[in-house]
Amino acid sequence: MRALIISANRFEDSELLVPYYRLREEGLTVDIASLTKGLIKGKHGYEIEANVAIADVRPEQYSVLVLPGGKAPAALRENKRVLDVVRAFFEAGKPVSAICHGPQILISAGVLKGRTATCYRSVADELRSAGVNYHDAEVMVDGNLVTSRQPSDLPAFLRETMKKIHALGEKAPRVAAS
Amino acid sequence: MRALIISANRFEDSELLVPYYRLREEGLTVDIASLTKGLIKGKHGYEIEANVAIADVRPEQYSVLVLPGGKAPAALRENKRVLDVVRAFFEAGKPVSAICHGPQILISAGVLKGRTATCYRSVADELRSAGVNYHDAEVMVDGNLVTSRQPSDLPAFLRETMKKIHALGEKAPRVAAS
Repeated sequence: MRALIISANRFEDSELLVPYYRLREEGLTVDIASLTKGLIKGKHGYEIEANVAIADVRPEQYSVLVLPGGKAPAALRENKRVLDVVRAFFEAGKPVSAICHGPQILISAGVLKGRTATCYRSVADELRSAGVNYHDAEVMVDGNLVTSRQPSDLPAFLRETMKKIHALGEKAPRVAAS
Repeated sequence: MRALIISANRFEDSELLVPYYRLREEGLTVDIASLTKGLIKGKHGYEIEANVAIADVRPEQYSVLVLPGGKAPAALRENKRVLDVVRAFFEAGKPVSAICHGPQILISAGVLKGRTATCYRSVADELRSAGVNYHDAEVMVDGNLVTSRQPSDLPAFLRETMKKIHALGEKAPRVAAS
């Protein structure tokens, strides 16, 4: 199973690294996409290789999308290709997990209206304005969508994200003769 | 179930935060012990509350011990009470997971002689001198002991640590992804 993380410079380090290591612990292959390939740097100075440029991402290759927070989403939401990729996950009903400022990308992609979600405190008004049923809670789950507020929510965020991933494994299609 | 992390200032941020959040995702209560109670600060600037002073730690309350790396172990290994606590985990056969410079504490506690382990590259000679069967591998498991080298080993480190925790038999088995 393959996971995609989309981020950029000034990511919130723990919100990228903790899911990245967790998904790999679980045996998933994890690609990190950014505006261009190469090292991206977090607010706390961690560097990690974005091994794929967003222009080269093929959403159909991935089972799950994770959007960390920090300052990265402010840049990513301005990129049309990022928004196309995000919409592809929603159209396919695949799990999408966004934390902190990550939901800003979902707003710009136009996929949040009428959904239930949470986000970083300072983003809450923007979510409400976008027609989101906002709750101040460590994690909100609405169908394919898992959202959290901040790094201290990572245990709940990943617990719910892992449930979505395990559910994919359980309903993986068996090879059938046609 | 209760886990103990022992660390101090200048910890390697990801080696503390990733296990901390992972254990809490799993439903464990996690205490962080340091030389004194209060905030400790990582090399990358993350701050986290050490909610218990090492003098007040009662090892019998915990099922598992995690020792992150960074510069913290250099200070911790000089503290007699830290070494007493570590020895108590080994004497009880409880899981102990140490990464990077974390195994330095185990050397000073005198619990590594004849054991198989790994550690950060620059600590390897010290491990060999202490009579350890050292291997350069992402994770080594020897009985109750799980060791890894560096942050990029965190997926393997936590996969093996979680196996030890699940083997304690105090939690319902989890669905594992293939």
